[in-house]
Amino acid sequence: MSTTLPTRPQNTADVSDAVAPVVPRRSALRPLGLSEVRITGGFWGERQSVNARHTLAHVLGRLESEGWLPNFDRAAAGTLPEGRRGREFADSEIYKYLEAVAWEIGRGDDLELEATFRAVVRRVAAAQEPDGYLNTQFGRPGQQPRWSDLEWGHELYCLGHLFQAAVARERTRPGADDGLLGIARRSADLVCEVFGPAGIAAFCGHPEVETALAELGRVTGEPRYTRQAELFVARRGHETLADIEWGRTYFQDDVPVREATALSGHAVRANYLAAGAVDVAVDTEDEALLQALRGQWARTRARRTYITGGQGSHHQDEAFGVDWELPPDRAYSETCAAIASVMFSWRLLLNDGGAAYGDSIERALFNVVATSPAADGKSFFYANPLHQRVPGVEADPDGTSPRASSSLRAPWFEVSCCPPNVARTLASLDAYIATADADGIQLHQYAPAEIRTALDDGRHVSLDVDTAYPADGRVQIRVNDEVEGEWTLSLRVPHWAEGTRLSVENADGTIALSEAVAPGTARVRRAFRSGDLVHLDLPMAPRVVTPDPRIDAVRGCVAVERGPEVLALESVDLVGIDDVGEVRLLGDAPLEERDGRVWARVAPLVSPPQDWPYAPATEPATVAAVPVPLVTYHDWGNRGPSTMRVWIPTV
Amino acid sequence: MSTTLPTRPQNTADVSDAVAPVVPRRSALRPLGLSEVRITGGFWGERQSVNARHTLAHVLGRLESEGWLPNFDRAAAGTLPEGRRGREFADSEIYKYLEAVAWEIGRGDDLELEATFRAVVRRVAAAQEPDGYLNTQFGRPGQQPRWSDLEWGHELYCLGHLFQAAVARERTRPGADDGLLGIARRSADLVCEVFGPAGIAAFCGHPEVETALAELGRVTGEPRYTRQAELFVARRGHETLADIEWGRTYFQDDVPVREATALSGHAVRANYLAAGAVDVAVDTEDEALLQALRGQWARTRARRTYITGGQGSHHQDEAFGVDWELPPDRAYSETCAAIASVMFSWRLLLNDGGAAYGDSIERALFNVVATSPAADGKSFFYANPLHQRVPGVEADPDGTSPRASSSLRAPWFEVSCCPPNVARTLASLDAYIATADADGIQLHQYAPAEIRTALDDGRHVSLDVDTAYPADGRVQIRVNDEVEGEWTLSLRVPHWAEGTRLSVENADGTIALSEAVAPGTARVRRAFRSGDLVHLDLPMAPRVVTPDPRIDAVRGCVAVERGPEVLALESVDLVGIDDVGEVRLLGDAPLEERDGRVWARVAPLVSPPQDWPYAPATEPATVAAVPVPLVTYHDWGNRGPSTMRVWIPTV
Repeated sequence: MSTTLPTRPQNTADVSDAVAPVVPRRSALRPLGLSEVRITGGFWGERQSVNARHTLAHVLGRLESEGWLPNFDRAAAGTLPEGRRGREFADSEIYKYLEAVAWEIGRGDDLELEATFRAVVRRVAAAQEPDGYLNTQFGRPGQQPRWSDLEWGHELYCLGHLFQAAVARERTRPGADDGLLGIARRSADLVCEVFGPAGIAAFCGHPEVETALAELGRVTGEPRYTRQAELFVARRGHETLADIEWGRTYFQDDVPVREATALSGHAVRANYLAAGAVDVAVDTEDEALLQALRGQWARTRARRTYITGGQGSHHQDEAFGVDWELPPDRAYSETCAAIASVMFSWRLLLNDGGAAYGDSIERALFNVVATSPAADGKSFFYANPLHQRVPGVEADPDGTSPRASSSLRAPWFEVSCCPPNVARTLASLDAYIATADADGIQLHQYAPAEIRTALDDGRHVSLDVDTAYPADGRVQIRVNDEVEGEWTLSLRVPHWAEGTRLSVENADGTIALSEAVAPGTARVRRAFRSGDLVHLDLPMAPRVVTPDPRIDAVRGCVAVERGPEVLALESVDLVGIDDVGEVRLLGDAPLEERDGRVWARVAPLVSPPQDWPYAPATEPATVAAVPVPLVTYHDWGNRGPSTMRVWIPTV
Repeated sequence: MSTTLPTRPQNTADVSDAVAPVVPRRSALRPLGLSEVRITGGFWGERQSVNARHTLAHVLGRLESEGWLPNFDRAAAGTLPEGRRGREFADSEIYKYLEAVAWEIGRGDDLELEATFRAVVRRVAAAQEPDGYLNTQFGRPGQQPRWSDLEWGHELYCLGHLFQAAVARERTRPGADDGLLGIARRSADLVCEVFGPAGIAAFCGHPEVETALAELGRVTGEPRYTRQAELFVARRGHETLADIEWGRTYFQDDVPVREATALSGHAVRANYLAAGAVDVAVDTEDEALLQALRGQWARTRARRTYITGGQGSHHQDEAFGVDWELPPDRAYSETCAAIASVMFSWRLLLNDGGAAYGDSIERALFNVVATSPAADGKSFFYANPLHQRVPGVEADPDGTSPRASSSLRAPWFEVSCCPPNVARTLASLDAYIATADADGIQLHQYAPAEIRTALDDGRHVSLDVDTAYPADGRVQIRVNDEVEGEWTLSLRVPHWAEGTRLSVENADGTIALSEAVAPGTARVRRAFRSGDLVHLDLPMAPRVVTPDPRIDAVRGCVAVERGPEVLALESVDLVGIDDVGEVRLLGDAPLEERDGRVWARVAPLVSPPQDWPYAPATEPATVAAVPVPLVTYHDWGNRGPSTMRVWIPTV
């Protein structure tokens, strides 16, 4: 059978046609999707290329060899439950893989990938029950009945990822004849029947189907899906699910979404739920719900987020701590939680605008999402601690690793949500770069990119973004086309970028504008001419950052940042000292940039040998400082077993 | 049926007759048991009284109402597994209760308690299988087979507690006709057969049977039991048990006991195992094993123990962290781990002597064991964090609480190991006060007490200890009898007690000696006369203590201690500030004692409101300090929901 690619969508100013993961029915900013924005290289372009060339095949290989994809074949053959492999949510990894592949096909024209995609979809299709039910773990003789374990069963969670895969496919290749959208719709119809107003008055322990149903509603125009998402959000928080060991906070069933003041419980669940709740609030024009979610976002960012943008302070329940509880060594900071936080932030960004959302997305992308995969795209961090106390152990390249104990990247996990989640995020990252509105174009993230779109009034805009960011702070935007009248180019100036300069160079080389701009949003409104260049110069000198004094776990420490990147001290860079736990930063010593790295001056931490570690204070001995290079956090753990810390003691 | 009390044991200098939980075959110091030492009041006497009057009945009531004791009736009636209640280790709580009651009967002559004890033993006896097997969770049709889940099944763990109960009974009422020792021996014989040299080459995931078998061997003179304990210790650490999510470190199966350098994994398991390993090493004269255990004890104390003496840094696996990983807020510091650490320390103390072991026992007793029960003896802390960030919620007085989320004391837990463990510890506490050797008597803990014993050479010694310690630092020891020749009274001078004075007052009121003594052991060797008074004056001024700089989690903080007690700041003592997270201690402000409390000077922690908590440093505003009284840590949480911290920021 020869494979042909279905038709690409056309660019229009109609929001509903955007080739993007999130396309609200109404929004302040219109998402620009994969048909309008293309990352052409640089930091993210390289990672997208590795993702396409290596990660997708790696993930598929594991889905096969672990037996998670063959579970569908067994379901189709009627031989389940015998031989079923993987945890109760294993189906979802196939769907996340399909979503990633759908975006990747949307970014290019890869016939081989198209054939693989269709083959996997066929295996999924064969496993679907006549009534639309689709799950390899439940409902057959010898298995638990359908919907009998909403706390832990993940049936709706899995379907949510199925729906997202179908949405990605329909947006990237509308009307494709692979059948995935039909599979998703049949399952979604069943969900609406079983869990509708007259059905089971409950919801899934792991939120995810809410945002997926909302998006499926958007892509199909089916209002039942939106209403079902609304119902799932509204039902939550009334103590419907069982009271598990960690309490109902774990799955956000302790407080209704519209009454919560911060995200709490399991960090991935909390962010997925919040993302779905924004979708519902936007599509149902529920301003009160939106306002509650904005408040949760702000408080979570101010009090429950690591400097890396990572979230989740507890290993035990993979959960947020309370305000200010942010231990660096026990940081869970799951890769999936950062991805979910990007989903939440992006939805508020579309609705509200505002640079803070873009700031948060940038921080999570550079310091968690980029940290997870190794350079070869074949091993991953699941947890992303900010302090590694003992050197890690190399993971078995053919084995699976416990999810959170990998202090070196591992190829696969017993719970392997993160690798395909990274894959679908990188494959759709082009859609998070820019937006449009009636007045112009907004750039939210800086990467070399081509932007080809139309403003709401139909005027065509073509921009080329050129930058080595974050290695360098200069971002150049070239305007290719001349359109009639003025429009506004808006640029996010990150919150740390005090001293940024904005300049506009006319096509003839004359300088039209050159001014200092404050963090927030910088706007250039003019009748752009073809060849106009807009320059944003972000200050990239390394910065010493102190934590809010209420964050007990890093009192007396500082961190170093450069641009959007958090730096760290890694033991492999130390000379004469084995461990990052044995040094402190000399507080008034300046940082230095040399040989492409940032250097700090550290001194050995001297403490008298003692058999009991709590004693009256003694004067520390005077010691000489030595220069040591810092490592970009997302690059740590790539030079063999090591210890590492982001927060470096000064006292 | 009328109940009569079995005969009490007689005091002799024969070590094997000591009425104590630990009676090694050989030891440097001879334990003085309940027939030789009697706490007569004071801090511990009050707690023993509450334990006897309230806790024992409270525990029994819950064992009945939760169905854990009725499990035995169902076993006897042959109706199991239907209706079995509680977790897989529920049997052990009945045995710990029996052990507590046995000690309590040993301390007094309570006929009602004797009748209760016998009634419970009869119900346990009825559940024992003909071959000696005894467990309500395994082995019946519809249950998992015996010994089929050594990782989690707790069968040997439960039997260990049965053996300890039988040992307590036999030591306090030798030859009693209740049958408990016989039950224990039949089970122990089965264990030796099933797990002996030719049997299953494995061991229990939760150590406990090792120390219990050793002690059962000591009390019965049966060498098989000791050999079986030796075998269990030797088998451990060779990766025999399954590799669970937290690794084999969790149950100490990663490194052989004689090769480990510090305690690691689950903190209760690690300490129980270490205690059993000391028993084995002592009875088999295995000096190399003992030396390894001494090293583990010292390193664990120096690097893995909280200032309270608590152990266990992780909630997730109830485990030790790595060196210096001691977060105050996520401190698990399980009550049972402190009890287990006392067991480990006490065994080394008996074998080696040395004040450091007594120091550790004192710290754990005053700051963890005394912290767990409420004043009424009917609710308990399971975890003992050093920082409570959010006020707790009152536990349902009729319900059970999740074990570690109780930030207020709770009457019972789903896993309720701590309440009966506290009960058996308090009921046998008299046995941890003093020891004897050929040269004299050693006092390790200070409490009002009567000591009536004989030296190894048969000379009788009678001492009365009088003290209000720790409220007051003066300890008076009155010598009641005059014996021929000199002997030595040794007194532990705690490591924090710089400036202690020792004096001896002759019966006629003249001062024989008055001198400063250093921390460690102070000795008075003389021919004591009846009426001689020895005074130890321990300095009780409050002390500011700093942590080793390698303990990252409390950098920039200090703690306050007074005598053996750790103090804390509790929100209910703050005026005008809601939360202990909002203050810092003014570093150079002296502490003050007033109205029976220690007062510190704190200032509000001022940080500018910000939407992102990591920023370049700003100069803190100058604020006025206010005096605030500190609370003794073991008394916190008794005045309603509050926040609390032991480590108080100074920067």
